[in-house]
Amino acid sequence: MPPDSTDPVASFVRANEAYAGKFAKGDLAMRSKTGVTILTCGDSRVDPAYFLGLPEGEAYIFRNAGGRVTDDFLRLFFITQMLGSRRVMVIHHTDCGLNRFSNQVIHDRTRNELGLDSSGTDFLPYTDLDQSVRDDVARLRSSPSVRKDVLVSGYVYDVKSGRMTEVTSP
Amino acid sequence: MPPDSTDPVASFVRANEAYAGKFAKGDLAMRSKTGVTILTCGDSRVDPAYFLGLPEGEAYIFRNAGGRVTDDFLRLFFITQMLGSRRVMVIHHTDCGLNRFSNQVIHDRTRNELGLDSSGTDFLPYTDLDQSVRDDVARLRSSPSVRKDVLVSGYVYDVKSGRMTEVTSP
Repeated sequence: MPPDSTDPVASFVRANEAYAGKFAKGDLAMRSKTGVTILTCGDSRVDPAYFLGLPEGEAYIFRNAGGRVTDDFLRLFFITQMLGSRRVMVIHHTDCGLNRFSNQVIHDRTRNELGLDSSGTDFLPYTDLDQSVRDDVARLRSSPSVRKDVLVSGYVYDVKSGRMTEVTSP
Repeated sequence: MPPDSTDPVASFVRANEAYAGKFAKGDLAMRSKTGVTILTCGDSRVDPAYFLGLPEGEAYIFRNAGGRVTDDFLRLFFITQMLGSRRVMVIHHTDCGLNRFSNQVIHDRTRNELGLDSSGTDFLPYTDLDQSVRDDVARLRSSPSVRKDVLVSGYVYDVKSGRMTEVTSP
């Protein structure tokens, strides 16, 4: 946080107190209403609650750096399939950190900031945004961890316009 | 999706068209305003945009099954540290799938539904909710991938009350 700011976590905690004080959604089920799983980036600008208009209870939302189909996602998505999910939207976005930083830049930074040799680690950067979506959709479709009746489509979200564009249809 | 519903993805796409039509946040930066990173579950009921009152641009949000500190999270969180994050909130929740399903149950399901032997895979279930938070906070704090000046705290979110309770202070 900027050194001159008040503690942001304290303000989040206060916001939760206000939310809980008016909460009326305690009957929502573990199984989401639509069964759709959204995989997107952890970037603060890219929040599907807003850009897809999703209230609580509507869809499973997974977010990591880039919205990449990682080993972890493939493993843990099975639990979501157990809860009935048969539809996935993979959503990458413009101006993403994974498009700005190369593995070499990240390796240099871990060595300088952590004293950590991460040269054997792939941080999953990409150079072509549409292709990164196509690659991840293909990885999901061909994974033995994903049921054959799961439909997957891919999109790019533009942080300048707020608009999501389809790259790969189901 | 339930077989009698209309396509939920089509309605999400329409919601995005409405969002983009009124969008006025195109100047937000890649670096989030608070630098806080939130790690929580992909459960549809557990959305920090709502329960912490976070508008776009406010905080990095990572979500996976359970909100667990996985190898992937530890790897990809470094990119968020490159963008200035020095504060993490780990938030697990009541009525989580990872508290309902054991590894044995999940292994049986992958064999029955996918023909996949996942017996060597840990799907990260837990039996004690508060302890799962403490374990994940400890894992983050001791990881060589995390800068020593990163502060981590842990919480439980109650899906019945909408209230978040601190388990581990920074």
